Amino acid sequence: MNVLGLIVEYNPFHNGHLYHLQTSIKKTNADLVIAVMSGPFLQRGEPALVSKWARTTMALKAGIDLVVELPHVYATQKAEIFADGAVRTLDSLGVTHICFGSENGDITPFIEANTWLINNETEVNIRIKEELKLGKSYPRSFSEVYTSLTQNKDMLDLSKPNNILGFHYTQSTSRLASSIKMDTIQRISANYHDIFIKDKKIASATAIRHKLLIEKASFESISNYLPDYSLEELRLHEEVNGKFHSWDDYYPYLKYKIITEDSLSLKDIFECEEGLEHRIKKCMINNDSFQGFLDALKTKRYTRTRLQRLLTHILLNTSKEFMRESLANKDLPYLRILGMSPAGQQYLAQIKKKLDIPIITNARQSKNEVFLHDVLASRVHEMVLHPQGKTFRDEFTATPIQYNPYPDNY
Amino acid sequence: MNVLGLIVEYNPFHNGHLYHLQTSIKKTNADLVIAVMSGPFLQRGEPALVSKWARTTMALKAGIDLVVELPHVYATQKAEIFADGAVRTLDSLGVTHICFGSENGDITPFIEANTWLINNETEVNIRIKEELKLGKSYPRSFSEVYTSLTQNKDMLDLSKPNNILGFHYTQSTSRLASSIKMDTIQRISANYHDIFIKDKKIASATAIRHKLLIEKASFESISNYLPDYSLEELRLHEEVNGKFHSWDDYYPYLKYKIITEDSLSLKDIFECEEGLEHRIKKCMINNDSFQGFLDALKTKRYTRTRLQRLLTHILLNTSKEFMRESLANKDLPYLRILGMSPAGQQYLAQIKKKLDIPIITNARQSKNEVFLHDVLASRVHEMVLHPQGKTFRDEFTATPIQYNPYPDNY
Repeated sequence: MNVLGLIVEYNPFHNGHLYHLQTSIKKTNADLVIAVMSGPFLQRGEPALVSKWARTTMALKAGIDLVVELPHVYATQKAEIFADGAVRTLDSLGVTHICFGSENGDITPFIEANTWLINNETEVNIRIKEELKLGKSYPRSFSEVYTSLTQNKDMLDLSKPNNILGFHYTQSTSRLASSIKMDTIQRISANYHDIFIKDKKIASATAIRHKLLIEKASFESISNYLPDYSLEELRLHEEVNGKFHSWDDYYPYLKYKIITEDSLSLKDIFECEEGLEHRIKKCMINNDSFQGFLDALKTKRYTRTRLQRLLTHILLNTSKEFMRESLANKDLPYLRILGMSPAGQQYLAQIKKKLDIPIITNARQSKNEVFLHDVLASRVHEMVLHPQGKTFRDEFTATPIQYNPYPDNY
Repeated sequence: MNVLGLIVEYNPFHNGHLYHLQTSIKKTNADLVIAVMSGPFLQRGEPALVSKWARTTMALKAGIDLVVELPHVYATQKAEIFADGAVRTLDSLGVTHICFGSENGDITPFIEANTWLINNETEVNIRIKEELKLGKSYPRSFSEVYTSLTQNKDMLDLSKPNNILGFHYTQSTSRLASSIKMDTIQRISANYHDIFIKDKKIASATAIRHKLLIEKASFESISNYLPDYSLEELRLHEEVNGKFHSWDDYYPYLKYKIITEDSLSLKDIFECEEGLEHRIKKCMINNDSFQGFLDALKTKRYTRTRLQRLLTHILLNTSKEFMRESLANKDLPYLRILGMSPAGQQYLAQIKKKLDIPIITNARQSKNEVFLHDVLASRVHEMVLHPQGKTFRDEFTATPIQYNPYPDNY
């Protein structure tokens, strides 16, 4: 049985994702598809446009059989840790294939790059340290060192964002000594960071979010780029919540948090390094908007993405100590099922006995610290659009979404 | 020179306060009046209706010569600590008289009650412990023990809120062995907690706040009960801010804080005792409104006021350790001047050399922890009505408000 694993954010699910899903199924001859999906806060340090439940519904309707939440301790992280958490999750669920989207489209260079790096680890690390000393960011240092050492070797281009992620998936699988077969599909038409739409049917998630959040465009204007069921979830969300999640709505809480913590406590927050706590306190006081605040914080050394991740950690009170303890444990703490098709449910029942990890479908009993942090993240995400409003969906009793794409067959 | 000291909140300043001020000046034959005023959060654990600067302007226009901020570590506290901080402040400023409002109106019973308690301390404390064991609150236990031990003695009625405060002012002055002469003026017409207005010119601050916050009444409907300059400050505040401060506007931040702190951290907050942290987490999840939350929290043992104070401490991240250290130091950390008349300024210049305590008029240089907590409290108070809006008044550079009631004389 071929079980395909996908690593996704679906923020929101669009035609590019659908193309990737369907092409990956064909290429790997998959019988079942499992997606590990980030919860309310994403890799680049941003809140998801809509709830994880709405995004799970999109995934199920697109044909995913099982949606599992990537714990927050892995979700808002640099590529290496993000990839590690995601690959471990899929591996523990017994997937036979992982197929990621990349700028490249051929898996061989990813495997070669991984082998090359294993063989040249010491030299690469020395060179990266030198670049870091010049005040460059880590991703930029890595990319420059890699490019300079591999020039004229016709190797994987690691300056492209999806190639970087794909490389780390490949590396994680190799480190785990997992039997998972890696494959990749070339992304079509849209670049990862594109905010403008060039194609008639495909737009990047960034471009779609830009339409919704910045241009406040109508649903009609994006309807070409999303399947109907995805558009429907966005519509439903807007009907209930009035708007989509953006950092702007979190900024008051971030401000409140920064005001009420002294510098020493801010320093305990994960990824708050080298006196950033003072800079944060100072920049916050002088900036009314989140974007202004972020612009003021930015330096050559700290990318926007890294700063957004740090601000997410401040918002969610994620301490260095908690993160150290959570990441030190290489066994996954649990599997949180967000949704399943009948086939996904059947598969889960089959593999359940072989699993070493607790499966959380009803979380009432869980006291796991890493899971409690997921609950915290979801609650903050839920309350922000309704500060005076309705109380919380009970994360502890919420059961997975069940969706049957072929109701006549069951 | 007779210098009268008043202990005030002026939330907002009304005709009852004006009556008290003018009558006190006459009774003590005062040449100068100094008010020690709570900052943005008040004794009963509530945010002040308007900023401390607006309330300072009211006080100056009413004829107060010097307004000094009561540090937050004393301001949101039970009567004993509140009184201690206020009396120390006035004593350090060299006041010769303190005149408080009370239900009683005669100073003798206050002095007698203080003497009686010194002589009966041991018995009173034993009896209070017994009452506390029955699950009663401290204020109720104290009041019942005192009443039962002094019955038929025709002594001060310590079940009345202003008599209690006055008693603690008297006790603090006696403990300080200060030469300040205590006096009291009987409150007229309105009871402290009255929310309905009975008199044509006098209403309690509670009744006025009820009009503004709950009934959303017009300024005209309260104009009989406040001097014009006080009404004018309320009008100005509403023009800029759209509404008055109430706990409802702070509830989202409180929720956010309670969500993002684990029980162990909540337990470190001042006045969070006996497992209240769990109760707080549970009740918050199920309650949309601050009032509903407070109702759910309330028990026989914990009065609304005590709970509101605890919630203020949670909101402002006031830890047990910080409060222990701050209150252990019996020397006042500083005097923060909020406003002054020319006479007040002259007086300040005179006594400045004799003071052991730093006077903060421009706070840029102050690193005092207790003062930084006042800044924190003011910033939270300022940001709540403008979560997306303008940045902060710089607490560190804000200079005292200067007001000259007799411009021709100077």
